[in-house]
Amino acid sequence: MQHIDATNQHQREIQRAKILDAARKVFAHKGKAATMADVAAEAAVSQGLAYRYFANKEAIFRALIEQALQANPATLSDIQEMPGTPGERLALLVSKLVENRREHPEFHQLLSQVLSDKATSGELRELVRERMQLLQDLMRHLIIEGQASGEVATDDPDQMITAFFACLVGLTRRAIYGPEQFHFPETAILLRILMPSAHQS
Amino acid sequence: MQHIDATNQHQREIQRAKILDAARKVFAHKGKAATMADVAAEAAVSQGLAYRYFANKEAIFRALIEQALQANPATLSDIQEMPGTPGERLALLVSKLVENRREHPEFHQLLSQVLSDKATSGELRELVRERMQLLQDLMRHLIIEGQASGEVATDDPDQMITAFFACLVGLTRRAIYGPEQFHFPETAILLRILMPSAHQS
Repeated sequence: MQHIDATNQHQREIQRAKILDAARKVFAHKGKAATMADVAAEAAVSQGLAYRYFANKEAIFRALIEQALQANPATLSDIQEMPGTPGERLALLVSKLVENRREHPEFHQLLSQVLSDKATSGELRELVRERMQLLQDLMRHLIIEGQASGEVATDDPDQMITAFFACLVGLTRRAIYGPEQFHFPETAILLRILMPSAHQS
Repeated sequence: MQHIDATNQHQREIQRAKILDAARKVFAHKGKAATMADVAAEAAVSQGLAYRYFANKEAIFRALIEQALQANPATLSDIQEMPGTPGERLALLVSKLVENRREHPEFHQLLSQVLSDKATSGELRELVRERMQLLQDLMRHLIIEGQASGEVATDDPDQMITAFFACLVGLTRRAIYGPEQFHFPETAILLRILMPSAHQS
């Protein structure tokens, strides 16, 4: 019996993961206009089965955001304690952020939706906003240290952060909405937003 | 009679412009989910009146895209013939593009919607795509000239163009969807995407 229970449990986890994978695609492309029927169709399961795992589309959306927050590592704050100069630590943070976007564009598209959609529950939005705030605070800290060491451009840190994240948001949208022949630009190109140019220094 | 006709004509133009102004806001925020009722409410006119000027919301959307294409100057191609080095002409193009986004975020949001929304009529999408292609071709041309003169970063031109326009798309979204305390970054910050960094050169 115990063996059968474990097998069932395993089967349930596989089904749930399959529905979430489908939902991630559907919500990333359609936003909150996505329906339970869209998700079931994409997962190739019946709507009845989808409802056995998730009470409604809000429940799926919440599970997706929780997954997305896990995939977007909070451990980035370790970077602050790493060896190297502030500019090197900033470059490391940028490369981690770019890599994460390149690998998980759908998660990031969902997180952007949460921030721009006033209809999302306040609590969920607060979670996403807090995570975003943590990342931006870390980046601001490294920028200010790097400006002191002469490695980072001397513009207003908040303007550089705005420009850098805007770039990630735009690239995420391109990755999701196409066209097909899209290549994520090299990290070095994006890093220049924060670094002194040859002409200014 | 002629005087009255001219006055009526003038009144009609004012009404039409008022409805279009309202529609620009509504469509930029809600996308194609916007309805004729939303537009009429935003313009503070009756739905009946809105329908006297536009047969349906597709007609409004088309008029908005035509306005947006006019606001997004095709005359930028003149830049290619201007005096100065290729790097200076590229910097001029970038500053015009940034200024245009800063002044007309809603128009650009609508143009992005046309490109990402597969439901928009093929003809309209083709118009927007052509305009975008013209701009990118101009930028590619100046980048390649500027690489030859040593003024521009030596990365793949298409990757730099992708990163630059992604940044504009992300900034446009921030300008539209908030939060309130948003400032468009200085042009010099965005220009660095294309320029050699102090460390690379």
